[in-house]
Amino acid sequence: MSTITWQEKATAKRESLLGLIPAEWRLPSPLPPPSELPNVTGPEIRKYLSPAEIEITESSAVDIVRKTCSGEWKSEDVARAFCHRAAVAHQMISCLHEILFESALARARELDLYLATHEKPLGPLHGLPVSLKDSIHVAGADTSMGIVGWLDTFEGLPHTATSKSQSSTIVHTLLSLGAIPYVKTSVPQASFAGETVNHIIGHTPNPANRSLVVGGSSGGEGGLLALRASPLGLGTDIGGSIREPAAFNGLVGLKPSRGRLPYQGIASIADGAPGVGFVVGPMGHSVQDLGFFMMALLAAEPWRVDPGVVELPWRDQVFEETRRRFAGKNEKEKMAFGVLLSDGVVNPQPPVSRALREVVKAVEALGHSVIEWNPPSHAEALKIWARLQPPLHQPRTQLTTPSKQRDTVTVDGGSTFHTSISLANEPPTPTIFGKTPQPPVPATEVMQRSIALRTYRRKYLEYWESTAELTGTGRPVDALIVPVHQGCATLPGRVRYMGYTCAVNVLDYSACAIPVTRVRKDVDVYSVGEKGYEGLSHLDKLVHEDYDAELLDGAPVGVQIVGRRLQEESVLALAEEITRELGKGEQARL
Amino acid sequence: MSTITWQEKATAKRESLLGLIPAEWRLPSPLPPPSELPNVTGPEIRKYLSPAEIEITESSAVDIVRKTCSGEWKSEDVARAFCHRAAVAHQMISCLHEILFESALARARELDLYLATHEKPLGPLHGLPVSLKDSIHVAGADTSMGIVGWLDTFEGLPHTATSKSQSSTIVHTLLSLGAIPYVKTSVPQASFAGETVNHIIGHTPNPANRSLVVGGSSGGEGGLLALRASPLGLGTDIGGSIREPAAFNGLVGLKPSRGRLPYQGIASIADGAPGVGFVVGPMGHSVQDLGFFMMALLAAEPWRVDPGVVELPWRDQVFEETRRRFAGKNEKEKMAFGVLLSDGVVNPQPPVSRALREVVKAVEALGHSVIEWNPPSHAEALKIWARLQPPLHQPRTQLTTPSKQRDTVTVDGGSTFHTSISLANEPPTPTIFGKTPQPPVPATEVMQRSIALRTYRRKYLEYWESTAELTGTGRPVDALIVPVHQGCATLPGRVRYMGYTCAVNVLDYSACAIPVTRVRKDVDVYSVGEKGYEGLSHLDKLVHEDYDAELLDGAPVGVQIVGRRLQEESVLALAEEITRELGKGEQARL
Repeated sequence: MSTITWQEKATAKRESLLGLIPAEWRLPSPLPPPSELPNVTGPEIRKYLSPAEIEITESSAVDIVRKTCSGEWKSEDVARAFCHRAAVAHQMISCLHEILFESALARARELDLYLATHEKPLGPLHGLPVSLKDSIHVAGADTSMGIVGWLDTFEGLPHTATSKSQSSTIVHTLLSLGAIPYVKTSVPQASFAGETVNHIIGHTPNPANRSLVVGGSSGGEGGLLALRASPLGLGTDIGGSIREPAAFNGLVGLKPSRGRLPYQGIASIADGAPGVGFVVGPMGHSVQDLGFFMMALLAAEPWRVDPGVVELPWRDQVFEETRRRFAGKNEKEKMAFGVLLSDGVVNPQPPVSRALREVVKAVEALGHSVIEWNPPSHAEALKIWARLQPPLHQPRTQLTTPSKQRDTVTVDGGSTFHTSISLANEPPTPTIFGKTPQPPVPATEVMQRSIALRTYRRKYLEYWESTAELTGTGRPVDALIVPVHQGCATLPGRVRYMGYTCAVNVLDYSACAIPVTRVRKDVDVYSVGEKGYEGLSHLDKLVHEDYDAELLDGAPVGVQIVGRRLQEESVLALAEEITRELGKGEQARL
Repeated sequence: MSTITWQEKATAKRESLLGLIPAEWRLPSPLPPPSELPNVTGPEIRKYLSPAEIEITESSAVDIVRKTCSGEWKSEDVARAFCHRAAVAHQMISCLHEILFESALARARELDLYLATHEKPLGPLHGLPVSLKDSIHVAGADTSMGIVGWLDTFEGLPHTATSKSQSSTIVHTLLSLGAIPYVKTSVPQASFAGETVNHIIGHTPNPANRSLVVGGSSGGEGGLLALRASPLGLGTDIGGSIREPAAFNGLVGLKPSRGRLPYQGIASIADGAPGVGFVVGPMGHSVQDLGFFMMALLAAEPWRVDPGVVELPWRDQVFEETRRRFAGKNEKEKMAFGVLLSDGVVNPQPPVSRALREVVKAVEALGHSVIEWNPPSHAEALKIWARLQPPLHQPRTQLTTPSKQRDTVTVDGGSTFHTSISLANEPPTPTIFGKTPQPPVPATEVMQRSIALRTYRRKYLEYWESTAELTGTGRPVDALIVPVHQGCATLPGRVRYMGYTCAVNVLDYSACAIPVTRVRKDVDVYSVGEKGYEGLSHLDKLVHEDYDAELLDGAPVGVQIVGRRLQEESVLALAEEITRELGKGEQARL
C-alpha cells in the first residue's frame, strides 16, 4: 500500500502540470491578489503575448480555419499562439487539468505538411485548436474529473493495456476533421457543481473579476475562453454546465438535445443513470463559430460511430428559413416567442430581468410577437431532475427544507462518487451536498421517476402547443427567451440555484446561451425596497440579498434561446439573429 | 368486497363481447373442430360475406382510401364490411378484445357527411378502418391486456372521472387523419408472449391452421389481418410482437425505432423500464400499405403531441433514392447486404433457411453484394434484453440452464404483473415464466445494465461499419436480411425462442417483416439426419426436433429487412423492392 496522502498526490499533479509549461512562458512574477487586480482579461493577458499571437488568438474560429486551410497561417503558429496564451491563462486562473502542448504542436506540424503535400486541408477544422473539458478522454492524458483518486486511473479503475490510449468518440471525430486538442480544462470535483473547485488545481476564478466564480461544471472552458486562450471548446451539460459558465463569462454556449452530438466514451459520475443525461456541446465567442462547428461535426456523420446519435444531418434549410423568417419581412411568417420572466422558484436579479426585456424589445421591433411564458411548474421539473441524479449537487437541494432533503436522495445514492473520492481518502469539496452515500433506490422507484419525467414533458409540450391561441400568429411560439441563471457570476459559495438551466435539461430541449448585456450599477437595482421583499421562498430571499450591483458592475449577463428537442438549427439561427439585432441597438447607443 | 371469481368476470366479458355482434352476423352453427377444418381463411370466411363485402375487404388500404376519399365507396359501407368480417373472424378464432362497431359506423357516417359537405376528405386516411392491438387505449373501451383484474379499470387502477374517456395519443392522430378504429385485438396475458392466450377470450389460433399458434403479442392483429378482416392494424413490439405474428400469418409488419411513432399513452406492463422499450407500428397486407400509412402518420407531425417522438418528417428522398439504387442500374451505386444465417443460439429450421437463400438470390441477381453477417454475439444481446425486462416471458429464459435462471430476474422483479393479476386472484397463464414476484434490483444495477446495453450497441455498430472492407462496394452493408423467427407458426407451447427479433429491439434498429415463401414439405427438410444433430444447445435441439414439415406444409415464412436506427424509409423501400423481386421469381416459376 502506498502511504501517499491525497494532498501529496494532488500537489504532485498540480506541479507536474506547471512543469509542462516551457520556461519562456512562465509568468515573470506572481500576479497581485484579486483585490488589487480583479480583471486579467484583455490588456492584462495581452502583456505576455506578441502582436502576432494576439492577432491569432483574438480571431474567430471561422477566420482561423479559413487561414489555416488556405495556408495563410501555419497551423503550427496558430497552435503555438493558443498554447502560449493557455499557459498564461492557467497561471492566472488555474483553468487547466491537462496540458497537451507537445502533441498539439506535433500534430499542427503534421497538418502543415499535409496541406503542403496534398494542397488541400485535412478536413473542415484543419488547424483549429479546440479545448476540451476534462471529462472528455484524450489518449495518454489523465481524466481526473477533479477527483484525486481518479488520477492515473481509467475512471477510478486501474489502467488496462488499452485504456491509456482511449479517447472519447468526439475526440476521434475532431481529429478526423483536422482539429487540434491542446488542453483539458478544469471542472469541480466530480464535475457536478455550478462553480469550479477541486483539490487538484484548486479554485478557478472568473478572469474578468477574480473575486467571483467562473461557473461550472465546464468552468475551465469558461475561463479559458474569456481569456481568449481558446478559439472554441467543448463542455458538457446535465443541468447548465455549458450555459452557466458561458453566461458568467460573456460567451456563447450550445446545449444540444441528447443524441445530436456523440457523448460516447465521455466520463461521468452518473453513468448509466436513466432519464436526464449529460450532453456535450460547444462553447465559444460567437454563434457563427458554433454553427460552423456544428456543421463540421455533423458532416462527419457521428451516428456511424456512436449509436446514441440520431441520424440527423445539419438541416441548413431550417437554419436559413428561420433566419429569413426572423428578418420579419413577410407579415404571414411572423414568429412568436415566449419569455420566462420568472420560474416561480427564484426571481431573476435586476440585470437578468433587463436582459430579458432587451431581447424582447429587439424581437418585437421586427414585428414578432412575444408572450409571457407560464408553463407547467418548473419547481416540479427541478424535483424530477434531482430525483434522477446522484445527490451531489448543492444548489438544487436548497429548494427543499432540511427535513425534506432525504426526498432528494436519488437513484444511485451517490455511490459512484463516494467510491471515487474514497480511492484517495479525499473529502468532498464544499460544493458537494451529499456528504455521505445513501442506499440506491429500487428499480421500481426508478421506473416511477422515469414516468414522472415523461409525464412532465408531455404537459410542457401541451402547454407549448396551446400557445397557438395566444401568439396572434395562429401558431404556437417558435422559441423561448429564458434566463440562463437568476444572476451573474457570484461570489464563491453563492451559486445557490441552477433551476433555469436544469429545467431545460429535464425537457431535453436545445438551448443556446448568448451574452446580452453587462451589469450597470446605476440602472440594475431592485425597484422594490430590499427590506420589503417577501420572496418566493427562503432561497429566493437569499438570492435577492446576494445581489450587489457595485460588485457586479460590468459583469456579463446572458439569456438562453430555447427550442424544442433537436432543434439546434433554428435555435442557432435565432441566437445569431438576436445577437445581431442586440448589436445594432448597442451601436445606436454609442 | 365482491365475491365474483376471476372465471365469472372473464366469462361475463367474453359473453358481453359476443353480445355486441348483431344477430345477422352470428355464425349459423359452430365451426367443426380444427382437426376437421384447420384453415378458415379465404374461401371459408368468404362464405359468410356478400360479394360487395368481399371486394371491399380484400382491397388494399391504399385502394380503399382512394375510393373513400373520392366518394366512389361510402365510408359507411367500408366500415360495415370490415365490422362484419371482423365479427365472423372473432367467432372463428377469438381474436377481439373490444368491439366498437357502433361508434365506428357512426363515425363512418360522419365522414361521408363531411365529404359531401366539404367536397374533400377529412384527412389522408379518410374512411380507413384500422384495427388496434388491445394495449392501445380507446375512449370508452376496456384495455384489459388479457388481465382479468384490468377489466373496467384504467391499467389496474379504479377509473377516474377522465380515464374512461382517455385514448392513446396515436388514436387521436388516427382520428385526425380520418381513420376509423373499429376493434381492439387480442393479446396474451399482460401482452408479453409469442403466442396469444389469456383467461378472457381464451386462445387465438392461427386462422390458416387452427392447430397452430397465431403468434404474439400482437396475435389478434395477426389473425384478424390473415382473415382480411382488417385492412391495416397497429401492433406493439418490444421483442418481436409485431414481426413474429406478421411472419406467422404471411403479413407485413414494421417495427420502427423508438421515437418514430407516438407510443405515448399506450398501456404496458413494463412502464418506465429503462433501456429496451416498446414501440408501436403498423401491420398489414403489403409494404405499400405500410409506407402509405407511415407517410400519413408523420405528416400529422406527431412530435407536436408526444415529446418522445423525434421531429423527423417522412424522408421521401431517402425512400426514392433507396429504391433507385436497389434497381441496380448504376454500377457505382450497388448496395450491400448482410445475411444472418444463424444467430449462434438457435439455428433456423429449413424453410427459414430457404427463405433467406431466396432473398439473397433475388438481391444478388440485381448485382448487389451479400456478405455473411457475423456480428457481436446475439446471445449477449438476449441476455441484455432479458435483464432489462420484467421476468415474464418464457422463451428467452430457456436460454439459460435452470440453475442460472435467477440471473435473468430483471429490473422490477415482475411486480406490476403480479400486482395486476392478483387484482382478480387470477393465476399466470402457461406462457408466463416468472410465476412469483422477485425483489426489484437496486438502481445501481439498473445503471450497470444500461451501460451494458450501450456497450453492446457500440460493438454492433463498429462491426457494421467494419464491413466496408468486406462488401466490395467500399461502404458498409446497407441493410440486413435476418430471420424473423427460427421457424414458422408452431404448436401451442412451442414458441421457444424469440431471439431473432429481440436482438433487433436491443439495437433499436428499424425492421420490416415480409413474407417470402411457404413451407414445402418436399423441399424443406434437414440435410443432416435428425438423429445426428448435436445442436447449439438444449434449446436448439428442442427447436430442431419440433420441426414437422408435414404439419407446416404451406405455412408462410418471413424474413426481416433490418436497417439502423430510425431508417424506416430505407427499410420500407428495400422491403417493397425485395418483395417485388420475389414476386417476379414466383411468377416465373408458375
